[in-house]
Amino acid sequence: MKKLSGRVTLPSEENFLNETKELLSRWGADALRDSDGTKLDKEIKQLNAKIYTTYFVARSHNEFAEQHPEEIQQLYLMSQYHMATGTKLEVTFMKGYFDEQIEPDYVHDPKKWWEVIDRTTGEVVNPDSWEVNQAENQLVIHQAQPWHEYTVSFLAYMKWDPTQMYNHMTNDWGDKPHEIPFDARQPYSNQFIKDYLVKWLKENPDTDVVRFTTFFYHFTLIFNHLGKEKFVDWFGYGASVSVAALQAFEKEKGYSLRPEDIVDQGYYNTTFRVPSTAYLDYIDFIQQFVAQEVKELVEMVHDSGKEAMMFLGDNWIGTEPYGNYFKDTDMDAVVGSVGDGTTLRIISDIPHVAYTEGRLLPYFFPDTFYEGNDPVIEANEIWLSARRAMMRKPLDRIGYGGYLSLAYKFPAFVDYVEHITEEFREIYDKIKGVKPYTGIKVAILNAWGQLRSWQAHTVAHGKWYKQTYSYYGILEALSGSNAEVTFLSFDDVIHHGIPDDIDVIINAGDAGTAFSGGEIWKESVLTEKLREWIYHGGGFIGIGEPSAYHHEGRYFQLANVLGVDKELGFSLSTNKYFTDTADSHFITDDTKVFHFGEGIKNIYALEQQTTILGQNDDGIYLASSPFGSGRSVYMAGLPYSHENTRLFMRALFFAAHKERELKKWYASNIHCEVHAYLEINMYAVVNNSMETQTTNVYVGTGIEHVVTLGPSEIIWEVCKDGR
Amino acid sequence: MKKLSGRVTLPSEENFLNETKELLSRWGADALRDSDGTKLDKEIKQLNAKIYTTYFVARSHNEFAEQHPEEIQQLYLMSQYHMATGTKLEVTFMKGYFDEQIEPDYVHDPKKWWEVIDRTTGEVVNPDSWEVNQAENQLVIHQAQPWHEYTVSFLAYMKWDPTQMYNHMTNDWGDKPHEIPFDARQPYSNQFIKDYLVKWLKENPDTDVVRFTTFFYHFTLIFNHLGKEKFVDWFGYGASVSVAALQAFEKEKGYSLRPEDIVDQGYYNTTFRVPSTAYLDYIDFIQQFVAQEVKELVEMVHDSGKEAMMFLGDNWIGTEPYGNYFKDTDMDAVVGSVGDGTTLRIISDIPHVAYTEGRLLPYFFPDTFYEGNDPVIEANEIWLSARRAMMRKPLDRIGYGGYLSLAYKFPAFVDYVEHITEEFREIYDKIKGVKPYTGIKVAILNAWGQLRSWQAHTVAHGKWYKQTYSYYGILEALSGSNAEVTFLSFDDVIHHGIPDDIDVIINAGDAGTAFSGGEIWKESVLTEKLREWIYHGGGFIGIGEPSAYHHEGRYFQLANVLGVDKELGFSLSTNKYFTDTADSHFITDDTKVFHFGEGIKNIYALEQQTTILGQNDDGIYLASSPFGSGRSVYMAGLPYSHENTRLFMRALFFAAHKERELKKWYASNIHCEVHAYLEINMYAVVNNSMETQTTNVYVGTGIEHVVTLGPSEIIWEVCKDGR
Ligand SMILES: [Mg+2]
Ligand SMILES: [Mg+2]
Ligand SMILES: [Mg+2]
Repeated sequence: MKKLSGRVTLPSEENFLNETKELLSRWGADALRDSDGTKLDKEIKQLNAKIYTTYFVARSHNEFAEQHPEEIQQLYLMSQYHMATGTKLEVTFMKGYFDEQIEPDYVHDPKKWWEVIDRTTGEVVNPDSWEVNQAENQLVIHQAQPWHEYTVSFLAYMKWDPTQMYNHMTNDWGDKPHEIPFDARQPYSNQFIKDYLVKWLKENPDTDVVRFTTFFYHFTLIFNHLGKEKFVDWFGYGASVSVAALQAFEKEKGYSLRPEDIVDQGYYNTTFRVPSTAYLDYIDFIQQFVAQEVKELVEMVHDSGKEAMMFLGDNWIGTEPYGNYFKDTDMDAVVGSVGDGTTLRIISDIPHVAYTEGRLLPYFFPDTFYEGNDPVIEANEIWLSARRAMMRKPLDRIGYGGYLSLAYKFPAFVDYVEHITEEFREIYDKIKGVKPYTGIKVAILNAWGQLRSWQAHTVAHGKWYKQTYSYYGILEALSGSNAEVTFLSFDDVIHHGIPDDIDVIINAGDAGTAFSGGEIWKESVLTEKLREWIYHGGGFIGIGEPSAYHHEGRYFQLANVLGVDKELGFSLSTNKYFTDTADSHFITDDTKVFHFGEGIKNIYALEQQTTILGQNDDGIYLASSPFGSGRSVYMAGLPYSHENTRLFMRALFFAAHKERELKKWYASNIHCEVHAYLEINMYAVVNNSMETQTTNVYVGTGIEHVVTLGPSEIIWEVCKDGR
Repeated sequence: MKKLSGRVTLPSEENFLNETKELLSRWGADALRDSDGTKLDKEIKQLNAKIYTTYFVARSHNEFAEQHPEEIQQLYLMSQYHMATGTKLEVTFMKGYFDEQIEPDYVHDPKKWWEVIDRTTGEVVNPDSWEVNQAENQLVIHQAQPWHEYTVSFLAYMKWDPTQMYNHMTNDWGDKPHEIPFDARQPYSNQFIKDYLVKWLKENPDTDVVRFTTFFYHFTLIFNHLGKEKFVDWFGYGASVSVAALQAFEKEKGYSLRPEDIVDQGYYNTTFRVPSTAYLDYIDFIQQFVAQEVKELVEMVHDSGKEAMMFLGDNWIGTEPYGNYFKDTDMDAVVGSVGDGTTLRIISDIPHVAYTEGRLLPYFFPDTFYEGNDPVIEANEIWLSARRAMMRKPLDRIGYGGYLSLAYKFPAFVDYVEHITEEFREIYDKIKGVKPYTGIKVAILNAWGQLRSWQAHTVAHGKWYKQTYSYYGILEALSGSNAEVTFLSFDDVIHHGIPDDIDVIINAGDAGTAFSGGEIWKESVLTEKLREWIYHGGGFIGIGEPSAYHHEGRYFQLANVLGVDKELGFSLSTNKYFTDTADSHFITDDTKVFHFGEGIKNIYALEQQTTILGQNDDGIYLASSPFGSGRSVYMAGLPYSHENTRLFMRALFFAAHKERELKKWYASNIHCEVHAYLEINMYAVVNNSMETQTTNVYVGTGIEHVVTLGPSEIIWEVCKDGR
C-alpha cells in the first residue's frame, strides 16, 4: 500500500537541517514553522515544504510602540476591596497589580472614565467626593460611609503583552525587552500595522503561510505584583478596551458603557457569568471592528500570494470563528492547540475556512521531554481522545510545537508520531468530507449558544478545574460520539424556538452560571417553549443544576420535566416519598458504576413517575422521568470516561425514544466505538483504549459479530446496504 | 446521707397500683400523670403525689364540635402544581390530601378567599377566569397560559386533630372517633372552652395540675391521601387560620393578608424561610390573641386552686414561651420532651414560670421497650446529654411518659432511672438558682432571634435531618458549655445594635435560610454594625454559609471579616493564592480531627492574613482571620460530638481574645467538663462519657490537678477563693 504523506506541520529551528529532513520524511510532513523563540535557517526554508511564519500584529514592535505611548492597549481593572473605618478612605488601587504590566491612565480624566463603587450598597460614588493622588497611585474618598467596602474601577495601560510576559517570566529572559501591545483602533497603530505588514510580506518571500499569532486583543491575562498569574479568562474582552473604543461604542450602539459593564464586580464578564445585554453588545461591537480590520490584513496577505492562518488563542479576542463576523475575514486557515476531543472539535468544526490545523499536545518542551519520562504515554492518551473526535470531523492538518531537537532525542516518540501521522492521513483520506452516520442530534443549551461552540465550561484553554470537569466531560463524550452536536442559546430558543431536527436538549452547569442560565429561567417564554417541545416528544437532559433559579416554589424551573428538584432547606417540612431505586433500566444496562464527579447534594424525586437510577447519602445522582410524550434524564455530573460516555449515549437515546436505534453501528465493549460512513460504504471499529479489546460489533441492521482489536487499533471494514 | 426525694413525675395507668407505689418510692416521685390513652385509677389518685391531668382545650369534644361544623379549625393549603397543556386547566386541588383530615371550605366564597397562582410567572389569576366544581373538588381555569404551572391555594377545614390522628393511625384505633379541632376564635367554641373548663375543674377535685395539651392551634401537620405524614413544621402557624382571623388581622394591622402570605409557595413559612413582614405580623397577631385567651383559662384554673401547666408541643402555636406575650398568660409551669441538651435548654430557660419540667426520653413505648433491647443504653446517652445542660440551667422537675407497666418489666432500667432521679435531685439541690461560672458570652444571630431560643435548625422537634445536624450541633455543644448564650435577630442588631456584654456572635446556616439570613445581608446597616463591632474587638464565628447573599462581588457579605468566601464559578478566572494550612493553632490544639458534617464546598481564603486550619479536596472547612482588633472563625459545620464541642469552645475563646481564660474551670480531657458555682464554693467535674476518664482539672486560678472519673460520674468538690 502506498504510503500517504502531507497534512503535517513541524516546528523547526536553527542548526537542525539534517534531522529536520529526516523527520519531514518519516512523518510525511509538508510544512515547517518557526515559533516565538525559534527561527528557521535559510536552508530549511528551501526544503520541499510550505513555510509558516509566526507573525505578531500588535506587539513585537517596541520601536514603534515606544513612540506612541498614548496608543498602548488599555483595560479596565478593579482595585481590591477597601473598607472604610472612617469618612476618609485611601484606596491604593494598584495594590496586587504588577507595575511592569499595568500603568494607570492619567491621560484621560479619571473623573470621567473611572468609577468608585460602594460595594456594600452597589452605588456609584459621586466623583466630586473623591480625588486621585497620581504620585502615590492612590484614590482618596471623602465622605465615605464607615464600614462600607469600596472598589475603584480604573482605566489603565497594559504595557507588556501577557503572552510574551508569561514566556519572559517563565524562561527568565532577563533584559529582553518587554513587548508593548498597541491598539489597532488608534490611528498611528492602525497605520503602522498595515504598513509593516506590506513591508514584511515583501521581505519574506520564503513564507507561504502567514501564521497570525494572533491579531489585536489578547484574552484577559493579568499578573499580580509578584509577576504571577492573577486573572485568566480565555474568552475575556478585558484588554480590548480604550477611550476610543468606548466612544465609538456609544456612537454605534446609542448608549454609553459604564466601567462596571466591563469590570462586572471584579468578575470581568467571564464566560461563567450570564452575559449582560451591554456585554453582548460590546462583544458584537468589538467583533465587527476586528473582522473588518482582519479582512484588510488578510487581503494584503492574499495580494502577496500567501495564505493567512490564524492561531486560535493569544490575541484572538474579536475573531471568534463561530461568531457572526468571522466569515467576513476571508481567513484561509485556523490552527489551534489540541489536547483532547473537545479541543479538536473547536478547531475542526470551524466554518468558512479552507482548512483547519491542530497542534497536537504534548509540546516538545522539557516539562514532558526529560530523561526518564516516556512522552509516548501522554502522546498516546491524547491521540486516542483526539482521534475519537477526528473520526467524526477530521482536522485538515496536524502539527506539533516546541523544540524539534528535543523530541528527536526520544526515538520511541519519533516512531510513535510516525504512526500517528500515518493513521491521521489514513483517516483523513477515507472520510474527509464524508458525513459520518449519526444516530442522534443533540443541542447544548446555555447563555452562549453557537458563539462558544465546544467551549462551554472552559476557564483557560485546556486547563482542568475542579469546578468544571464534571461538566466538561459532556463535551468530551460527545466530541467523538455518533451524535450530531449543535449549540443553542436561550435567546435562540426564545426568539426562534427549537430546530425541528433536535432529538435531545442538554442544559448543564452550576446554578447561576451562564451554562445553567441563572435568572433567564424566570422568562416564561423559555420554559413554555421547552415544556411544549419536550411534552410533544422531545428529550431533555439536565446535568448538575439545570434550569436552576429559585422562583415560585421551584429551584429547577424545569422540575416538572426533570421529575426532581433540589432541597434548599425550605421544604424540609415536606415529606419526600419517592426513594426507591429502579432495579434495572435501559440507561444503566451497560454500566453499573457511575462517577458523577463533584456531585450535587440534596436532589430528590418529586413524583412517583420519576425513575431513580442512582442515589447515595447525598441524594439522587441519576434519574429519568416521562413528561407528556417526552422524556428527561437528570445527572449530577458527567466527568469524561468510557463508562460515562456509554451511560450518556444510552441516556440520550433513551431521552429521544430511540432505544431501538442504539445498537446500530455500535460496539458492546465500552472501550470501543463504531463509526460508519455510508456514502463510502465503510465503517471503522475503534479501540479507544491502550489494551486489547474484544467487542460485539453491531452494523446498521443491528446484526452483530465479534471483533478483537489490538491496543488503540482501528479496523476498517467495507459495508454494503447498511450492513 | 439523707436520700432526697421529689421533683419527679411518673405516668401511671389503670390496674397498676402496687407497682406505682413501689416506683413512686424508688424514684422518689411526687407527682403522677395520665396521658392521651391512659387513665388513673381512683386509688392511684389518692396516693401521696400531686396529680397531673391531661386536658385538651380545643379537641376531644366531638359532641360540641359536631354541632358547630362552621367552627372547625381552618387552614390554607396549596394544591400540587398543575401544568396547562391548553387554555383550559382542571386543578384537582385535593389531590395528595387526606379527605378524612381535610375538607375544602365552600362556606366562604372561594372567589374571595382562595387564590390561583401562575407559578411560572408568579402572577395571581383573575378569579373571573376560574370556577370551582364543588362536587368534584376541582377548580377549572379558563384562559390558562399553556405550559405554565398553576397552583390553587384553598381554604379548608381541618376536621381531625393531627396528633390524635397520628396516634389513631399508628395504633390502629379503628372506629374510635376522630377528634375534631375547633377554633377558640369562634363564638360558640370560645364559650364552650370556658364553660367546659369551669365544669371540668369542679368535676376533677383530685387534679392538682391541669396539664394543658395544649391550647388552640396545632403546629402544622398534614397527612397525605394514604394517611402518611405529608408536611410537618413544629413552628408552623398553618392551622391557626380562619376567615375570622384574617378579618380581625386586617382590622388590627390595617392591611389584609393574601392567601400567599400563609401558603408561601408551598413552604408555608417554615422556620427555614426568612420570615416576611406579613408573616411576622401574623405571628404577633396570633400570639396576642392566644395569650389573652390562655390567661383567662389559667385564671380559671387558679381560681379552682389548681396549677396550670402547658405542654410545649402539639397545640402550642401562639404560646411561644420566648415570645412577647407569654408572660401575660400567668402560666405556672411548662413541660416538654427532652432528648438532649438543646431540648432541655428550650424548657429550662423559659422565663415567667414558677417551674419547668422535662419529660425525659425514651418514652415507655414498645419501640424501645421490647425483649432483647436494653433501654438503659439509650437512657444513659440521653441523660448524659441532658445532664450537661442541666449543669448549666437545671429543670425544676423531670418526668417520664408512656406505659409505666412496660418500663417495670425492665429491672435494670428501673434501677437506672433510680440513679438518674437521685442524681438529678442532687444536682438540683446544689445548684438551683446559682449562676454557674461562664467564661464567655455568645449570641446566635439569625432571622428569629429570641423568639426561637434554642430552636434554630429544627424541623420537627427532636428529629434528625441530614440538612440540619451540622448546624444543630452548635446549640447542643453550647447547651452544656460554660458559655452564656443569647439569641439575637437581625432586626435586633439593625434597631438596637449589639449588646455590650457579648463576646462572640455566631451566624450559621445554609444560604438563603432564616438561619443564615438571605437577602437581609444586603442591608448595609446590618453589615455596618457588625463590622464596626468586630473591628473594635468583637468575635464572629460563621458556620456553613454565614452572611451568604451574592451581591457586588461577594457571596459572604462578611467575607472581609471571615477572610474566606465561596467560589460560585464566577471567579474561577481569579487565582487563589492562599492555600497553606497552619501547622498548629490555639483552636485546634486539643483536636486534630474535625468532622464538619455535611460540609460546604469551594470555600477559599481571600487574604494572606487568613489562617487556614483545615481543608480538604473540597476546600477550606476551618479558618480564622483577624479583622481590626477583632477576630473571626469560619467552620463548614459543627455536628455535635465531644471533639467538636472542645474545638468550638476553643474557637469561641480565640475569637473573643480570651485564650488565657480558657483553662479556668476546665478539663483537659475532652470527654469531661468542669462546672463551677462560685456563690456556693463548689465545682463539679463531669464525665460525659460511658467510659472511665482521667483528666487534668483546672480550677479558677488555672492551677491543675488530676482526677479519674468512673463512667458518667460527677465529682463535686469544694472550692475557696476561686480555687
Ligand atoms: Mg474563507
Ligand atoms: Mg404527653
Ligand atoms: Mg407566672
